[in-house]
Amino acid sequence: MAKQTNIQEFEAVFPKLEKALLEHAEQYKLPKQAVDWYKKSLEVNVIGGKCNRGMSVPDSVSLLLGRPLTDDEYFQAATLGWMTELLQAFFLVSDDIMDGSITRRGKPCWYRQEGVGMIAINDAFMLESAIYTLLKKYFRAHPRYVDFLELFHEVTFQTEIGQLCDLLTAPEDVVNLDNFSLEKYRFIVIYKTAYYSFYLPVALALYMLDIATPENLKQAEDILIPLGEYFQVQDDYLDNFGLPEHIGKIGTDIMDNKCSWLVNQALAIVTPEQRRVLEENYGRKDKQKEAAVKKLYDELKLEQLYKDYEEKVVGDIRGLIAKIDETQGLKKGVFETFLAKIYKRSK
Amino acid sequence: MAKQTNIQEFEAVFPKLEKALLEHAEQYKLPKQAVDWYKKSLEVNVIGGKCNRGMSVPDSVSLLLGRPLTDDEYFQAATLGWMTELLQAFFLVSDDIMDGSITRRGKPCWYRQEGVGMIAINDAFMLESAIYTLLKKYFRAHPRYVDFLELFHEVTFQTEIGQLCDLLTAPEDVVNLDNFSLEKYRFIVIYKTAYYSFYLPVALALYMLDIATPENLKQAEDILIPLGEYFQVQDDYLDNFGLPEHIGKIGTDIMDNKCSWLVNQALAIVTPEQRRVLEENYGRKDKQKEAAVKKLYDELKLEQLYKDYEEKVVGDIRGLIAKIDETQGLKKGVFETFLAKIYKRSK
Repeated sequence: MAKQTNIQEFEAVFPKLEKALLEHAEQYKLPKQAVDWYKKSLEVNVIGGKCNRGMSVPDSVSLLLGRPLTDDEYFQAATLGWMTELLQAFFLVSDDIMDGSITRRGKPCWYRQEGVGMIAINDAFMLESAIYTLLKKYFRAHPRYVDFLELFHEVTFQTEIGQLCDLLTAPEDVVNLDNFSLEKYRFIVIYKTAYYSFYLPVALALYMLDIATPENLKQAEDILIPLGEYFQVQDDYLDNFGLPEHIGKIGTDIMDNKCSWLVNQALAIVTPEQRRVLEENYGRKDKQKEAAVKKLYDELKLEQLYKDYEEKVVGDIRGLIAKIDETQGLKKGVFETFLAKIYKRSK
Repeated sequence: MAKQTNIQEFEAVFPKLEKALLEHAEQYKLPKQAVDWYKKSLEVNVIGGKCNRGMSVPDSVSLLLGRPLTDDEYFQAATLGWMTELLQAFFLVSDDIMDGSITRRGKPCWYRQEGVGMIAINDAFMLESAIYTLLKKYFRAHPRYVDFLELFHEVTFQTEIGQLCDLLTAPEDVVNLDNFSLEKYRFIVIYKTAYYSFYLPVALALYMLDIATPENLKQAEDILIPLGEYFQVQDDYLDNFGLPEHIGKIGTDIMDNKCSWLVNQALAIVTPEQRRVLEENYGRKDKQKEAAVKKLYDELKLEQLYKDYEEKVVGDIRGLIAKIDETQGLKKGVFETFLAKIYKRSK
């Protein structure tokens, strides 16, 4: 039987990785001030999240093996998991600068912390580099070492083109709803989020066990990308319709001019008059204008539209999972577990 | 006989690489707006420099082979050369943001160009990713493919720790000369500049010809790092003592609070009274204060100190070159060519 990891067990691996990273840096006789800075950046930016992405690597490996992991297997899988968290930290630190965000995980964004500022850009680079330092240290002798490197390069690039498209489609200061479309929405969601959050952890698990055949990777991708898309649509839905006490924040997508699933659905069905309401009120830092958009969303019955979408997409995904070919070692349970964590979540 | 390349020949390779990069991006069905953006970022940020680093790859390969390159060899070597230019572009685009720079190559820095802003951070990431896209496309079957990947990872990290140390040692707005030291100066210069500018191109040439034995790499490093250090010391010297009509700009290191070779030499020999002059005048955006520092540099005879340093270090480097063991295919000519380009340069 597979065994699910938990945040305590997963976080317990990090100190060893942090030590390896600091030792690697110290090997260059980096001045102490800089080593201390790197340590702080790692601790502030990599630890403290929910680690859903990272933990899904050991969970997937355990599901694929159909049994609990040995200590050594757990360490390997969790190390790969922490690499996905490092990749995410690299993106979050830099996205926060690009988006001019204020807080992250309830604290000021790294670039807004005392004395950091634009040094955060270089810190983001170093978080990315840490992935390759760890891969070299712990996976150089692995038969799929090159595939690990190429997978991280590819997923990094995919996330970057997703972010580029997002930045060009929804600049915070220029509201132009003509720029939005469901097609662009899907592109952004798939590349900016789905590949690194959903496909990457499972691909890593498959490579670790050396069962990443082209067929298995393709099957994983074909399910995990729609799953990741569904996850982000949910996120957009919860930003407006979720309860702040559940989602842990007050949604700001309307005021932030986000290319959200909701506004794209609205644009697809509005009357010319309703479109004017959107044009005049979307993407403004003004509570009254935000309320006008929220009212329109209610009139358009977007909550029901979402619920219908959810049932449809979950049905489709279940259909895909049912058809999985397990002969090369892939397991339906990997995807069932992902889906179960997401379906009808309220946070 | 080896044959030196020139900028026309080298630049003529770029369109093919650009096409490969754009085709790779288009394969993901990136919206046209984003493809056009990527194209512009590549053209503004990668082309237009002197390409000394990039061209030194084909030059080194030709010197190592002792003959002109075939078209195919030239393309391979120039492609590796363009990867060093991509790496530099990644650093320059982001350094300009971190340093708050105004112009680059006579034009506004990328992040200051119309409509760019902080999107430049993501553009920098994409320039870095382009290295790995090209490596995969053109070198995946090369016997040293993994070494190429690891070399770029390593040199990238080295440059990042050099940049971190620089940012922590010499923040533009906080003048604290106690923070400076020749030891930190050397660290910054070696890691921020010497590895990617001098070691990387030669290491790439050695890997391309598959003669990158540990001994050859070590010999190259042992000469190219001091050479790179000398190059940066020269840069710092020319910033103050060079002629603006030669160096193509008016030096601003004193006003910018740079951890320059000159200020570190001065700090090592000043009287307490002269130190006060430095304390009161260094790192201020004030022409009179800058003049006071320049006067002190003259009193301290830093120009002569530099000339003595130059003769000493060039003598040492010549000694190292003379002792090179060529039995594994390394050639003294590679280093003699580098040195000849640098020695007593005025620009």
